[in-house]
Amino acid sequence: MANSKYEYVKDFEQPDVLLPSTWIVVRIDGKGFHKFSDHYQFTKPNDRRALDLMNAAAVEVMKELPDLCIAYGVSDEFSFVFHPNCQLFERRSAKLVTTIVSTFTGYYIHKWSEYFPSTPLQPPYLPSFDGRAVIYPSNGILRDYMSWRQVDCHINNLYNTTFWMMVLKGGMSNTDAEQELKIFDEGHPTYFTQGTVSGDKNEILFKRFGINYNNEEDIYKKGSVLYRQFELQEPESAQEGEVDNSAVPEGKQSRSQQERLRKLRRKAQVVVDHVDIIKNDFWERRPWILSGKPGKLPA
Amino acid sequence: MANSKYEYVKDFEQPDVLLPSTWIVVRIDGKGFHKFSDHYQFTKPNDRRALDLMNAAAVEVMKELPDLCIAYGVSDEFSFVFHPNCQLFERRSAKLVTTIVSTFTGYYIHKWSEYFPSTPLQPPYLPSFDGRAVIYPSNGILRDYMSWRQVDCHINNLYNTTFWMMVLKGGMSNTDAEQELKIFDEGHPTYFTQGTVSGDKNEILFKRFGINYNNEEDIYKKGSVLYRQFELQEPESAQEGEVDNSAVPEGKQSRSQQERLRKLRRKAQVVVDHVDIIKNDFWERRPWILSGKPGKLPA
Amino acid sequence: MANSKYEYVKDFEQPDVLLPSTWIVVRIDGKGFHKFSDHYQFTKPNDRRALDLMNAAAVEVMKELPDLCIAYGVSDEFSFVFHPNCQLFERRSAKLVTTIVSTFTGYYIHKWSEYFPSTPLQPPYLPSFDGRAVIYPSNGILRDYMSWRQVDCHINNLYNTTFWMMVLKGGMSNTDAEQELKIFDEGHPTYFTQGTVSGDKNEILFKRFGINYNNEEDIYKKGSVLYRQFELQEPESAQEGEVDNSAVPEGKQSRSQQERLRKLRRKAQVVVDHVDIIKNDFWERRPWILSGKPGKLPA
Amino acid sequence: MANSKYEYVKDFEQPDVLLPSTWIVVRIDGKGFHKFSDHYQFTKPNDRRALDLMNAAAVEVMKELPDLCIAYGVSDEFSFVFHPNCQLFERRSAKLVTTIVSTFTGYYIHKWSEYFPSTPLQPPYLPSFDGRAVIYPSNGILRDYMSWRQVDCHINNLYNTTFWMMVLKGGMSNTDAEQELKIFDEGHPTYFTQGTVSGDKNEILFKRFGINYNNEEDIYKKGSVLYRQFELQEPESAQEGEVDNSAVPEGKQSRSQQERLRKLRRKAQVVVDHVDIIKNDFWERRPWILSGKPGKLPA
Repeated sequence: MANSKYEYVKDFEQPDVLLPSTWIVVRIDGKGFHKFSDHYQFTKPNDRRALDLMNAAAVEVMKELPDLCIAYGVSDEFSFVFHPNCQLFERRSAKLVTTIVSTFTGYYIHKWSEYFPSTPLQPPYLPSFDGRAVIYPSNGILRDYMSWRQVDCHINNLYNTTFWMMVLKGGMSNTDAEQELKIFDEGHPTYFTQGTVSGDKNEILFKRFGINYNNEEDIYKKGSVLYRQFELQEPESAQEGEVDNSAVPEGKQSRSQQERLRKLRRKAQVVVDHVDIIKNDFWERRPWILSGKPGKLPA
Repeated sequence: MANSKYEYVKDFEQPDVLLPSTWIVVRIDGKGFHKFSDHYQFTKPNDRRALDLMNAAAVEVMKELPDLCIAYGVSDEFSFVFHPNCQLFERRSAKLVTTIVSTFTGYYIHKWSEYFPSTPLQPPYLPSFDGRAVIYPSNGILRDYMSWRQVDCHINNLYNTTFWMMVLKGGMSNTDAEQELKIFDEGHPTYFTQGTVSGDKNEILFKRFGINYNNEEDIYKKGSVLYRQFELQEPESAQEGEVDNSAVPEGKQSRSQQERLRKLRRKAQVVVDHVDIIKNDFWERRPWILSGKPGKLPA
Repeated sequence: MANSKYEYVKDFEQPDVLLPSTWIVVRIDGKGFHKFSDHYQFTKPNDRRALDLMNAAAVEVMKELPDLCIAYGVSDEFSFVFHPNCQLFERRSAKLVTTIVSTFTGYYIHKWSEYFPSTPLQPPYLPSFDGRAVIYPSNGILRDYMSWRQVDCHINNLYNTTFWMMVLKGGMSNTDAEQELKIFDEGHPTYFTQGTVSGDKNEILFKRFGINYNNEEDIYKKGSVLYRQFELQEPESAQEGEVDNSAVPEGKQSRSQQERLRKLRRKAQVVVDHVDIIKNDFWERRPWILSGKPGKLPA
Repeated sequence: MANSKYEYVKDFEQPDVLLPSTWIVVRIDGKGFHKFSDHYQFTKPNDRRALDLMNAAAVEVMKELPDLCIAYGVSDEFSFVFHPNCQLFERRSAKLVTTIVSTFTGYYIHKWSEYFPSTPLQPPYLPSFDGRAVIYPSNGILRDYMSWRQVDCHINNLYNTTFWMMVLKGGMSNTDAEQELKIFDEGHPTYFTQGTVSGDKNEILFKRFGINYNNEEDIYKKGSVLYRQFELQEPESAQEGEVDNSAVPEGKQSRSQQERLRKLRRKAQVVVDHVDIIKNDFWERRPWILSGKPGKLPA
């Protein structure tokens, strides 16, 4: 029915379609989670319940959006990745981002009591998340994005683990611990090469607290990677290089073909892993992530 | 600490700052609420509990974001409005939209059991919302946007009320009711002028069901308008016209001044009204909404 | 005819429509004009021929694009202004900018020999211009933009006039003159208030060189403002304030109405003025510039 | 010097940086060239002087912008291509587009009299060009873009050649020729597969006018491709596939390295070719175009 006199205001909506044939990463972050985690007394340096809740919410997002091919979470952030072929919501940025943010928030709150049974949520201390979409034009750059997040996880976790040992076990004040780590970093610059960080906070942990950082749990050291499980492949059989769909208009599969693929993805189980995603091995064994073509369901 | 090898991926983030000195409207919509409302058996044509829950969640969003100056809700949608002077999140679109979507979703779910005490939420039937930001360059166009939404509310509610009377009281099938209304609209084109819709669905309601549409509740007919309550002003004292902050760089108030205004807004009560926002009266009595300058707190 | 296999590449074109109901300013700048003006030995501090050529080219742009309502030029830059109602090229940014840049470049080169009859253009020293479009949401901000350019003109011209007197008449080296002006500015901060710049470079000019800056030609002090000439109006009769076309969907005039206005504009003479555009007087006497409604043609 | 009161208007400029690591194509088109070519009586269906002038102007653009790696021209349009590594003007879209449009326009006008010695340009019939930038995320898609333009060239040239033969030699009216070709296309749908168009306009040309389309000049059939000449390579030695600069932050070469490459490119001759750019051969023999790494200068 007509609403014509005022309808012209729709002309002010500006298109936000993301460039075709590029990877879309939607990264969400907890808003004010420093205060939030203090309020609910999260364990330091890592609260396993909180991470498990993040992962549980992310699994539900993956299930509701079969177009997602991988997700990576650390601390209070999660990156959700759509394939270059993805046509969901015509690739409208705001639609993609808000759907993920809203769904994630919903499950985080709904499942809260499973993971924190004795600490009910108390407004105004409700969790909330912001998010944005970024596009990456090639497989290599997408992988660099993922590596960036996992290296960040490592750097932060090593720092936090050391810091909190100094405070909780070493009896130092927050300020003193911070100060010593700062001086330490300046004296022994934590350099970073070839995908590893070799700062010797390891040494502090071992000498002062008898902790071998390598024995820390992988979920803390490597973060969480979520993907759909198909049959793993042998690395040598995997194909190298960029898939270049020239003149095979990407994402221009028929509606029915898209629907078929979506169903296959829906059937696959979403798994939560804590493994290295910087080296090639992870990707070669799971070629369906970069190719966007579902593999065989495991027996 | 350095994470330099991969950090270049940050260069792919593209700025999304909204044009200064323009109204920002963030409109959110329930995702798949047709199915959602069926699942939880919302009353037809309007479920008062569901609308009250929408409003309750929106009130919390208004409280958490004192930069918001007005909001308007109808059915499963809500429009939140930031003043041209707003500098929140440096006016980054994704930040503004996702913060509102996430906060709204959070409160909607958290408060669900207050409004639907006997119907717990059942995944995967969790409510979620998408959203987007649109900017409007003048007061007049912002008001036209608000009018557009309120006219839409009226048109839809009149249709829905008639339709559901025909089905629920008149014993018609959905299809038959739809069909008759369609023929009716074609025969008696529902024209729309001067801010009113005069289609004679009113007649069907009155003649067949003895319902005077004017006596329906305002929350259904006019939707819900939320704003901060300051002392109302006499319309004649109000200033007409566009506030034109030329050479008073809008939004360039000092941080401390912005903080002072934010505090004043926080103190004001957020009220939920069901009134006409198309005519001038509403705006003239509440000049703080368009001016962005908080008035006096009511005694 | 079909070219279907490759046509998908068109999907990569992204929309660049400028927000409706906003002023569009296309500013163009000479590329490498420092070198360019050296090569063709432009007179210092101002070369009248070069400015006249800029203005001549701008007049042709105004004639070819009747949608332009005002333009302002200084040195090697020109700002061309489209009204909020403008629908030219559906307000596509690249179309608007490149059309102006190309037309301007064309006339600048074509008319070169008129203004520099004894100095033919010598590739690769061909003049070229870059440009961009910026939108402004209100009349007041558009006027501030214009004021910004005119104040800039004044500041630069005062500086350049003083600098070149010190070099050409005072026999100082470029470096010495620059240095003295720098110290001078630091000692006597050139402050700027209420639309005037009161730095006392005036003093240097007067005491050392007997030059009264006020007697310099207006084209140098005020730049050049181009507009279509209709009958001037008395300022008192002019209407104040923002024209707010709410619910009169701006720019939604019928094609034929737009065509009629375009014709009226085509008939009006484009004049080149060197007057103050910061104060109200200029705008009040020429209300057609801000209103976008052509006035009466002068007798 | 301060111009502070009005300087806030600069905040309205919105960034237009193109996504890193993507191909940038700037396509320019003659404005109103139908009328333009009529006015200067261009030969039909192709005017060799006009095409040579287009190419001459494009060669100058290539020379002034060594960052350009290839260009393709047909009729009154030209596509200029920057490599994903290009950092010119920080990849600002308006800067890139207007620089090309302005430089091209300048040379087109400046060189006009060389190619049309007896027909001086007559304002307002000055040539002008509009343009826009589009980005493409992979080598394959860039090549599809180039193929799209070359196929278009072929389709249009075959049509135009036939049409003008029917008019000029066949004595038909424009309308009749158009009509017959339309019917012809409907009866014998000109299908397009595997990079070739096989419409049998060829037949009309041959049977009625004794023209073998294959013998037409390549500049008309294939358009013009411009690139820098380095030593050609044997196709078999060329590397296949996508160059994927993961973790070799593209375009993040040092300033000095960029400068060195720019110099090498400046030294290479810009050649104008009329060859197939759809098949692999062209690209394999000239790997520097897709790799962005200058080859050896030919002896």
